[in-house]
Amino acid sequence: MSYQNDLIIRAAKGEQVERTPVWLMRQAGRILKEYREVRARLSGFKELVETPELAAEVTIQPVDLLNVDAAIIFSDILVVPEAMGLTYEMVEKKGPHFPKTIETESDLTNLIIPDAYEGLAYTLDAIKITKKELAGRVPIIGFAGAPWTIFSYMIEGGGSKTFSKAKKMLYTNPMLSHKLLEMISDTTIKYLKAQIECGVEIVQVFDSWAGILSEEQYKEFALPYIAKICDSIEEVPVTVFAKGAYFVRREIGQLNCRTIGLDWNMDPIHSRELIGSNKTLQGNLDPCVLYSDFRTIEKKTKEMLDKFKGGPHIANLGHGVYPDIKPDAVRCFIDTVKTYS
Amino acid sequence: MSYQNDLIIRAAKGEQVERTPVWLMRQAGRILKEYREVRARLSGFKELVETPELAAEVTIQPVDLLNVDAAIIFSDILVVPEAMGLTYEMVEKKGPHFPKTIETESDLTNLIIPDAYEGLAYTLDAIKITKKELAGRVPIIGFAGAPWTIFSYMIEGGGSKTFSKAKKMLYTNPMLSHKLLEMISDTTIKYLKAQIECGVEIVQVFDSWAGILSEEQYKEFALPYIAKICDSIEEVPVTVFAKGAYFVRREIGQLNCRTIGLDWNMDPIHSRELIGSNKTLQGNLDPCVLYSDFRTIEKKTKEMLDKFKGGPHIANLGHGVYPDIKPDAVRCFIDTVKTYS
Repeated sequence: MSYQNDLIIRAAKGEQVERTPVWLMRQAGRILKEYREVRARLSGFKELVETPELAAEVTIQPVDLLNVDAAIIFSDILVVPEAMGLTYEMVEKKGPHFPKTIETESDLTNLIIPDAYEGLAYTLDAIKITKKELAGRVPIIGFAGAPWTIFSYMIEGGGSKTFSKAKKMLYTNPMLSHKLLEMISDTTIKYLKAQIECGVEIVQVFDSWAGILSEEQYKEFALPYIAKICDSIEEVPVTVFAKGAYFVRREIGQLNCRTIGLDWNMDPIHSRELIGSNKTLQGNLDPCVLYSDFRTIEKKTKEMLDKFKGGPHIANLGHGVYPDIKPDAVRCFIDTVKTYS
Repeated sequence: MSYQNDLIIRAAKGEQVERTPVWLMRQAGRILKEYREVRARLSGFKELVETPELAAEVTIQPVDLLNVDAAIIFSDILVVPEAMGLTYEMVEKKGPHFPKTIETESDLTNLIIPDAYEGLAYTLDAIKITKKELAGRVPIIGFAGAPWTIFSYMIEGGGSKTFSKAKKMLYTNPMLSHKLLEMISDTTIKYLKAQIECGVEIVQVFDSWAGILSEEQYKEFALPYIAKICDSIEEVPVTVFAKGAYFVRREIGQLNCRTIGLDWNMDPIHSRELIGSNKTLQGNLDPCVLYSDFRTIEKKTKEMLDKFKGGPHIANLGHGVYPDIKPDAVRCFIDTVKTYS
């Protein structure tokens, strides 16, 4: 497929580009009133995720309204544990909740490694519709949670400040932990491959709770499964975003992926030294900068871009955009990237 | 005053010690049934904080029951904003909540820089009682929150995953932010000096939300105020624990403090390289290790101790002990430090 704008694919591959491509984590939804209008018609967040036409509609909104260089499919990382057999609820203003969690080996026997076309057809359908409607304007980014992050929800049953239940499982039952992480990885690989078959051109693996693990545990329970995913996906460039995992940047730099996402705490220059010049880096403006006036946003965005000059770069925030950020502030960020880079 | 056990003071000063001293963050309370018995008699957490005899009692419990090398006064970092004029409630299982927060400059006019002997007399009285009852068995650690962490509660009104309201204030109203941080710092210095007058022999500054700031913001809004506190406290050794602030370890190493606390993500060997051999390091076993069996606790504790061999060390966890940890697991950690080091 030929794209009118394939900057992000070329940047991910490390090719020379005319300017730095830009998109935002969680751009599909959250800040746009057009998104909230769609959302208001529905019973909840999950209905939107599971209704392909509407998921496609909100996926495309930021392309139309913010002029980003890629669409990221509207979905949630928790669709994977749900397809494996653990349903979740999205509790308004509180976040996800799993009524059942994994506590013992026997709980694993109730889980499956689903065929994505059965268990996750709604996201695949949303990708197909988006693909058709975008008609090559920009590429679509697919995604999944990293195995450790998905594991932590399946054990913990929801968000947590310490994720101590999930970490306790790693220390007290490493055998069960590895078994479950393996199942999540296999499901994720099948799911990402199906996303690619349906039309995504880049995939991103989100390890949202990476920073909660010690270096030793990260190397034993997180990194090998991300590596397995990276090794299995050869069709399109893979991006790994391990929030807070500053202590394994060097190791993440050696994965079979093309792009490495940096959070806003990670210095781009130092990260480049650790990772080398071969990979594309993505990030990493502090999302809170977008609360400032346009002059500050412009200044901080330029400073950020300058710090990434040592190698291929995809501009983004260092975390998902916060819901109360004004769309005009996002536009200021995007325009600055487009004109300055 | 002469102590039967002054290991921690000598280790903090960088002197040679017979073995590594050990204590736990949040040891006063949380894990002991003897603590919960005291707590059950009261209306809530704050009543315990504000009742000197009982605060002293739970301060001493870990010395008796766990054999730690120091007592840390039982209190809360939020007593400081309360004494400044913003009261808080401790909501069971949810955490602190401030009914009023700081939103504009005019809100600052309602705040005071209190005399510690008036606004915070209950903690000072608790220190005096503890001092008398301990009768020199071990030293007492005093503490306060770092200005940025206290600031974030005063703006945000409670805990948060992103602290985006507090960070927004830094970006949108740096003038107000600096004014408030200055007021918090001045209050904290007076409070710590009063704690020292009443008998504490070490003080620790907790920057619990350090890791939420970008390096640039940390250097502008957090570090200078910690530096001011360190420069003002000459009477006893100061410990700085800035959780998550891996990106400014070198700068923290240059502060006028004696000990630097490391969280469990910070590698002791690399941190020692950044900080130099002059300072004492404190930490940093992953608190979740204490969920394991004794053999694993012993093994991981020894590995941790080995990593700190490059300079003076005070053993601790890399975060406060979690409430559901078994006291025997804590004893295993403490005994391993005492016999192995």
